[in-house]
Amino acid sequence: MAIFKTIHSLDDLFLHTLEDIYFAENTILKALPKMEKKASNPALKQGFETHLEETRGQVERLESIFKSLGKDPKGTECPAIEGIVKEAEELAGEISDAEVKDAALAAAAQAVEHYEISRYSTLIALAQRLGHEDFVRPLEATLAEEKATDAKLTKLSESTLLRKAA
Amino acid sequence: MAIFKTIHSLDDLFLHTLEDIYFAENTILKALPKMEKKASNPALKQGFETHLEETRGQVERLESIFKSLGKDPKGTECPAIEGIVKEAEELAGEISDAEVKDAALAAAAQAVEHYEISRYSTLIALAQRLGHEDFVRPLEATLAEEKATDAKLTKLSESTLLRKAA
Repeated sequence: MAIFKTIHSLDDLFLHTLEDIYFAENTILKALPKMEKKASNPALKQGFETHLEETRGQVERLESIFKSLGKDPKGTECPAIEGIVKEAEELAGEISDAEVKDAALAAAAQAVEHYEISRYSTLIALAQRLGHEDFVRPLEATLAEEKATDAKLTKLSESTLLRKAA
Repeated sequence: MAIFKTIHSLDDLFLHTLEDIYFAENTILKALPKMEKKASNPALKQGFETHLEETRGQVERLESIFKSLGKDPKGTECPAIEGIVKEAEELAGEISDAEVKDAALAAAAQAVEHYEISRYSTLIALAQRLGHEDFVRPLEATLAEEKATDAKLTKLSESTLLRKAA
């Protein structure tokens, strides 16, 4: 959300938040294949692949909402997701041990999920307030996917990535 | 987490994540009074003040953990929180309407809370894995505060900030 000159109303705020998360999702589309390559654990690699597919669907949902609003889909620079992804890439690049790197990659992915959870929650609240009932269902579907991904990563960390060697 | 040259083990990852959130909490300590000043709604202003007090306690908990590890408390640059706070400040600075600004400030605060929730969750999982049982309780206390703050902001948005004028 780099340029806010045009925010005068909750409608403007909704559109800007939409542009913010559209930029974020497209950033994540580029980051996920890199994270998948850096991961060693097969379940973690598979998790990144699955979420890449999901993210493509989430981008399409956002594009439908832009279309319903009569707007061309566009992103607005989002320093938050850039910072989160920068941290993740720096972190993974400096860890040589595969076990430690997988733990760090899973944690970085959870930071991404939580950013998305907060933004989709805001979009849903704004959509409800603005009477965009038709946007609520697709946004809630995405929110549920982000929460499920976060929960899967927690489970994978506990059961495997951070399990003590016997 | 800007410099990762020393991450070879899960212990290193724990310490780095600790330094990351220590930097983040100190960044938030500086940001909250500015957000409080920009807010108009009394409950939102009060919420920022209350969370400022809580954040001071959270910083102290982190300092105790550093001390237990025999380390001086220090932060490591955290592009994620810098990005989230930058977005919040840019956003609030460009909105003149008080109602819209309050909604945006609450949403920005929720993005901050979610970042913290993800990092404290990671710290707790690592502390458990590494046998730092004495760190789990204070970290869980902070995590509960962050989740409660997020829930309070959701409730405030729904009941007041985004309530339709009668």
